[in-house]
Amino acid sequence: MAKDQEKWVFLFRDGNGTMRATLGGKGANLSEMTNAGLPVPPGFVITTDACNYYSANDHEFPEGLWDQSKAALADVEKQIGKKLGDTKNPLLLSVRSGAPISMPGMMDTVLNLGLNDDTVKGLADQSGDERFALDAYRRFIGMFANIVMGISMSKFERVLERFKAQTENGRDTDLSSDQLKEIIVAYKKIVNSDPDSPDFPQDPYLQLQMAISAVFTSWNGRRAKDYRRVNKIADTLGTAVNVQTMVFGNMGWDSGTGVAFTRNPSTGENVVYGEYLLNAQGEDVVAGTRTPESIQKLQEENKKVYDQFIEITERLEKHYSDMQDIEFTIEKGTLYLLQTRTGKRTGAAAVKIAVDMVEEGLIDKETGVMRVGPNQLDQLLHPMIDPDAEITVLTKGLPASPGAATGQVSFDPDEAERLVEEGNKVILVRHETSPDDFHGMVGAEAILTARGGMTSHAAVVARGMGKPCVAGAGELHIDYGQGIFTVGDHRIRSGDWITLDGSTGRVLLGNVDTVQPELSGDFETLMEWADDMRRLRVRANADNGHDATVARDFGAEGIGLCRTEHMFFGDERLSVMREMILAETTAAREQALEKLLPVQRQDFVEIFKSMDGLPVTIRLLDPPLHEFLPSHEDLQSELAELKLRVQHASTYNDMNALLREIAEKDDLLKQVERLQEANPMLGHRGCRLGFVYPEVTRMQARAIIEAACIVKGEGVTVMPEIMIPLVSVDAELENQRAVVEKAAQDALGEYGMDLDYMIGTMIELPRAALTADDVAKHADFFSFGTNDLTQTTLGLSRDDSARFLPYYIEHKVLPEDPFQVLDQEGVGQLVKMGTEKGRSAKKDLKVGICGEHGGEPQSVGFCHDIGMDYVSCSPFRVPIARLAAAQASLREKNSK
Amino acid sequence: MAKDQEKWVFLFRDGNGTMRATLGGKGANLSEMTNAGLPVPPGFVITTDACNYYSANDHEFPEGLWDQSKAALADVEKQIGKKLGDTKNPLLLSVRSGAPISMPGMMDTVLNLGLNDDTVKGLADQSGDERFALDAYRRFIGMFANIVMGISMSKFERVLERFKAQTENGRDTDLSSDQLKEIIVAYKKIVNSDPDSPDFPQDPYLQLQMAISAVFTSWNGRRAKDYRRVNKIADTLGTAVNVQTMVFGNMGWDSGTGVAFTRNPSTGENVVYGEYLLNAQGEDVVAGTRTPESIQKLQEENKKVYDQFIEITERLEKHYSDMQDIEFTIEKGTLYLLQTRTGKRTGAAAVKIAVDMVEEGLIDKETGVMRVGPNQLDQLLHPMIDPDAEITVLTKGLPASPGAATGQVSFDPDEAERLVEEGNKVILVRHETSPDDFHGMVGAEAILTARGGMTSHAAVVARGMGKPCVAGAGELHIDYGQGIFTVGDHRIRSGDWITLDGSTGRVLLGNVDTVQPELSGDFETLMEWADDMRRLRVRANADNGHDATVARDFGAEGIGLCRTEHMFFGDERLSVMREMILAETTAAREQALEKLLPVQRQDFVEIFKSMDGLPVTIRLLDPPLHEFLPSHEDLQSELAELKLRVQHASTYNDMNALLREIAEKDDLLKQVERLQEANPMLGHRGCRLGFVYPEVTRMQARAIIEAACIVKGEGVTVMPEIMIPLVSVDAELENQRAVVEKAAQDALGEYGMDLDYMIGTMIELPRAALTADDVAKHADFFSFGTNDLTQTTLGLSRDDSARFLPYYIEHKVLPEDPFQVLDQEGVGQLVKMGTEKGRSAKKDLKVGICGEHGGEPQSVGFCHDIGMDYVSCSPFRVPIARLAAAQASLREKNSK
Repeated sequence: MAKDQEKWVFLFRDGNGTMRATLGGKGANLSEMTNAGLPVPPGFVITTDACNYYSANDHEFPEGLWDQSKAALADVEKQIGKKLGDTKNPLLLSVRSGAPISMPGMMDTVLNLGLNDDTVKGLADQSGDERFALDAYRRFIGMFANIVMGISMSKFERVLERFKAQTENGRDTDLSSDQLKEIIVAYKKIVNSDPDSPDFPQDPYLQLQMAISAVFTSWNGRRAKDYRRVNKIADTLGTAVNVQTMVFGNMGWDSGTGVAFTRNPSTGENVVYGEYLLNAQGEDVVAGTRTPESIQKLQEENKKVYDQFIEITERLEKHYSDMQDIEFTIEKGTLYLLQTRTGKRTGAAAVKIAVDMVEEGLIDKETGVMRVGPNQLDQLLHPMIDPDAEITVLTKGLPASPGAATGQVSFDPDEAERLVEEGNKVILVRHETSPDDFHGMVGAEAILTARGGMTSHAAVVARGMGKPCVAGAGELHIDYGQGIFTVGDHRIRSGDWITLDGSTGRVLLGNVDTVQPELSGDFETLMEWADDMRRLRVRANADNGHDATVARDFGAEGIGLCRTEHMFFGDERLSVMREMILAETTAAREQALEKLLPVQRQDFVEIFKSMDGLPVTIRLLDPPLHEFLPSHEDLQSELAELKLRVQHASTYNDMNALLREIAEKDDLLKQVERLQEANPMLGHRGCRLGFVYPEVTRMQARAIIEAACIVKGEGVTVMPEIMIPLVSVDAELENQRAVVEKAAQDALGEYGMDLDYMIGTMIELPRAALTADDVAKHADFFSFGTNDLTQTTLGLSRDDSARFLPYYIEHKVLPEDPFQVLDQEGVGQLVKMGTEKGRSAKKDLKVGICGEHGGEPQSVGFCHDIGMDYVSCSPFRVPIARLAAAQASLREKNSK
Repeated sequence: MAKDQEKWVFLFRDGNGTMRATLGGKGANLSEMTNAGLPVPPGFVITTDACNYYSANDHEFPEGLWDQSKAALADVEKQIGKKLGDTKNPLLLSVRSGAPISMPGMMDTVLNLGLNDDTVKGLADQSGDERFALDAYRRFIGMFANIVMGISMSKFERVLERFKAQTENGRDTDLSSDQLKEIIVAYKKIVNSDPDSPDFPQDPYLQLQMAISAVFTSWNGRRAKDYRRVNKIADTLGTAVNVQTMVFGNMGWDSGTGVAFTRNPSTGENVVYGEYLLNAQGEDVVAGTRTPESIQKLQEENKKVYDQFIEITERLEKHYSDMQDIEFTIEKGTLYLLQTRTGKRTGAAAVKIAVDMVEEGLIDKETGVMRVGPNQLDQLLHPMIDPDAEITVLTKGLPASPGAATGQVSFDPDEAERLVEEGNKVILVRHETSPDDFHGMVGAEAILTARGGMTSHAAVVARGMGKPCVAGAGELHIDYGQGIFTVGDHRIRSGDWITLDGSTGRVLLGNVDTVQPELSGDFETLMEWADDMRRLRVRANADNGHDATVARDFGAEGIGLCRTEHMFFGDERLSVMREMILAETTAAREQALEKLLPVQRQDFVEIFKSMDGLPVTIRLLDPPLHEFLPSHEDLQSELAELKLRVQHASTYNDMNALLREIAEKDDLLKQVERLQEANPMLGHRGCRLGFVYPEVTRMQARAIIEAACIVKGEGVTVMPEIMIPLVSVDAELENQRAVVEKAAQDALGEYGMDLDYMIGTMIELPRAALTADDVAKHADFFSFGTNDLTQTTLGLSRDDSARFLPYYIEHKVLPEDPFQVLDQEGVGQLVKMGTEKGRSAKKDLKVGICGEHGGEPQSVGFCHDIGMDYVSCSPFRVPIARLAAAQASLREKNSK
């Protein structure tokens, strides 16, 4: 190599994990593994710089590239003891692209490069399986012709179909060696007769050169460019090319292939968890077509390899200090690691592994806390089968994803999707699942499959979604056509109820009760660590004493949102509420409110007691009043019905009663019409009600303060925070604050008590955020109502978005559902601005968030970053928010 | 005066117009007038500093105040030749407060101070009218007792009522001198028997001292404090006290009183315009109880005073260089100016006066342009009676406010208000109007009164509102009780139609056609000046060729908003539109769109022709699709009706037809239900439609580009700007831009033409403004849709706000209707931010506004200030926007 010549080629052992920009992600990983002393099939990487040179220079290799490649190849040949093009002991290569950022839209892999009419015989001899060798050659020609030379795959498929039709079962595994030979001749003829491309290259070096060019060229192919445009990846990154030795698990019974996790991905137990098949190729394991053996069996079958395997998993965990998910192949007694990556795991496993690894000294506490995805905790909080329930176990499969769920059987993903949309609970039952079934899995409560293992599609997807899954329940006989499955003596039809226990693999008959699980000690440990690390407080949204208690059990440090309107929906209360709404004078309205007062007060008493010592934010009446009235349409059809009945009334009394009813309903209808709004979301609601009807605010403030006095009298420490909703102009808050203060003063006077309480507002309209400095003058605290703020900022009604929002997300116009993950770019600007402006006017302003984003980890991170005091979320998401808050603190610490 | 002593008192001649902070507004004005050589009744001002001292020092006068006051008083006595407390020639004073900022909530005026048991006789002798003197004394005691001493007015009223009851007609003018004397005794008794206050002071100096104290004290009274709080006026300003000589117009037939404008306030003609009454008090003129003489008559009655008057008006206009509205009194042949202020005028007068004064050299062109309130132009654009209409003139009154209007007679302001709310056109007919009638005047088309002059309440208010008014139509006999007026042989009942011509004073029978007036040469002149001065371009919102032509006539420099959906509402088009909406496949949808294409294209052809050489911004389909379908309720009741009819169908054929109709309607109902939205404003509309149904965007883009090609072929210069509505995420615009560009390319290819066109977006959602830098990357222009932006920023549905928005404005929670006047504090922030961010990404981004605010002067000023390129408004408001834009430019220039 000339002194100044650039280094275009890196042997795996010359690179490392930090060289993603030059070697691409895959190349850097393979280098890292090699350097960690792991038995990686040897190979080399051609740099992204070479690709960029190639793109910029009219598809010319840079000077030295080919020479360096040949030198690297010679090194590889020496390591593996095979030679490219050798007819006895042929080296076969895989050639694949690997950009610095993973790009699924890029070029496919070329496998078995190096095969030609001569080397195929060597492969046949070595494997002792001529059919395998010929089949590999046949596939290679097709793959190479298609991917490298650009010839349509359908031409090859037509030939294959013709030959398959001649076999007994019509499958490609039924093809004989002779037939495969004929196919190879036909394949080569397709290539060689193509007018636009050269003949199929028998020279393995030429094959390699062409494959490298093809990878480079693919960087500027339509698919790759589209992918980059959509994902905003720079065109200048370029792709690396990975050239790696092929190893074969099907070279006899001292060969094999498998996948494994270094610890149990479902429970987190520190035991290697994996499956393998001897004399098999990798795809046989993943496909679930042969049921693989547990990795522990390997100890009996090949102790030497097993020991090596165990030693490697330990080395892996030390090197990566995390649980790994690996693919391996044994070729003639030698173990090769094809891939390692951080292993996906259930929430329970994530917690256990994190805590165990801290205790094993592999990682520190902070790393442990960072290791658990906050959303994964959701799974831990999932229900399990009620231990006291009487159950009938239909069968047992693999416990592929934990949690228990109950639902009606559906065999069809389309049907399942529809049923879920109609509000049904569905359990999707399939032979095995594929990506085509995904839409049916999304809404299903749980998934049950008859085939496939812990790493099957159904299992992986279900764990990802935190849904229960029982996989490989082999006793199940499913008949899609009849819509039925039988197991033992049971016949379960589509629509029948079953219950799955994804933690044990049990399939139960009928709708079995489920209960909330106890949280493990590891969970408590992790949460304690997290609590020590976070700055952000976490509160819960709860509207009654029961929910408040649940929230407190989950670690809530207060109530961030108590929605008083939910208290009005009980049957008796609703009728008083309607009386209030339909009142035509202030006096009549006050009379109705007088009846609501003790009811509200009692609700608050319960919440305050549950939250002894913690703050409770109570939002005053928020929704438009017509939400409390019957729907216009219902009333209209009831009226139509009554009018029909009047025509058929048979007695004077009947007639009279009907006419009276009609008159009443007609009256109500008129009231409903009077209150109807074109856009209730933007209508007469929130503090606009309290402003026009101050008596409503007065009643609610009284109920809160009186309840506080009552519980304080009983020794409870009570910290009420009264929240005025939907403020857009500071004067609204000023007005409502005065009403609340007056009512509070009156109540306190009557009870002869003192009380610390706060008055604040929700910031849920853009204008409130934009003028937060003015608003803050009248507020002791802000709570960002990001649900409504998202609706107004995006001009997007949550109720109406279902028709197009999924389409938006699918087309990446929006990266995520803005009602789930806070739109930081847009809505986030207002939240930040509101916080800053608010604090500019009032330095110690307490600021929180109470939209559903308060329990979503990314959004929690944002709230931490902009300096909020607390987030508030649904009780079950409190642990998630606690963990997310800790991680946000750590990220901030680490970025300093 | 000691050397260091502060100057607490200023004679009028020692102050000037710039000393508002020290002398208050009124005091500074009186000083200014005095110094301009105008015959102001002499007096002096006590400073705001004295008030502040008084407030801060336990209601003590500062040292020197009283001495300085007495010295000033002596000076005044010398000037006027009367003495305070003199029994022969008594000086009477008015004492009134005058803060630096006008505060209607402050202390009332004390008039006739200086009267006592002795001086009242002097006044009686001087005026030769004992009744007048006694009545003045009686009033003074009540006023002084009430305002200065805080005794309830009702006590005095009870006494007065008792005495009035003894007279023949029960009016206070019927009271005899003797009765008045008895009343005075009774009044003094009330005061002197009040346990909380001293006796009524006979000493005029003590009266003055007490009155000054009372003014100071009133600064911290409840009324004044409330007023300051609401209007955000600092408490530290303090009020000045104005002490001024009283002059009397009822001192015989060489005395008189009147009001006048220095030019005609209705037409602007340069002729003094006023009214006076000899031997009368000021209130007699304003009240309209005696019909006054035209000022020109004074020339005959008292040439000397008339000449002095004319000389004064000329001096006034030179001094103030604007038309003045003055109050004057003649006391025994001497003319006094009581008040002068800039005269209110009609739009026509404003234009004429401004242009005349520029031509007279009184002011420069820029001042001329600043002199006309942009909203005043609205009046000029008001309709007038169709000259070709056959008319029946009922009577003629004063042409009190120009313009013609037609409506149904109502005699009751409450009824008028209600009728207007119900959508009726009303003409309010009253004897005369008072502030109590205001609510009825607001909605009325025009006002007709039987009494009162050009300066009566009705006339002043109507001119202010730009409504036609005919005042003082003395032939009218109104009977409120019967709801009827008669004039000549005509009997007009409540609810009958009449037509008013406020420019001529004619009252016409029935509903007479009105037409738009020709605009005067002065108007053109002024607009030319304005056009030379403004930077902001002015466009119009127009949806068809006719409106575009009108807009161009009004000076529009392009179309800023053409709403394509308005083009779909014709009957035939609507059915095709429905076909498109109800299409279940893309193919079917495209078929329907194919039918709409030529129709849209033709619309655009017409608009482009009207706007030859000017840009035309066309907004793609914006509203939710269900707006094009029949309403759910209508369909439901139609269905109910049909179902009833089916029960009574008498033949098989009838039955069958009905059942078919039911099935069809049922189908349509389902579609309507499918498209129904909870909050259509925030629903599937704007570019969200175009994104999901790109074929709609494609058709519209094609229609625009094809139309442009067609007219270009005919020699028209066409500049289309295609506007994508309701963008919230930049990717939406990117997507729709691509669709438009592709369609445009295709169309241009077919026509074989080149064309300059732009693609831009409406900024009408907060998120678009917040992320305007991203959005601008895909936009050639921004147009702020401030109607929708106001709705989302305030979370306020325009359709639903009627129930509470008026209440908000009434209670000053919002200063103005944010849908009329741009909410600069809130929405304005987003407009500014959007403009700045947009330009930060694209320096030459064209930015405009197309909400209704584009024709509202304050909002136009804001658009200028933040550097927009243009505003767009309804055609009739184009001149208003042009003038407002010029004024904004001038304000900017003058502030530099």
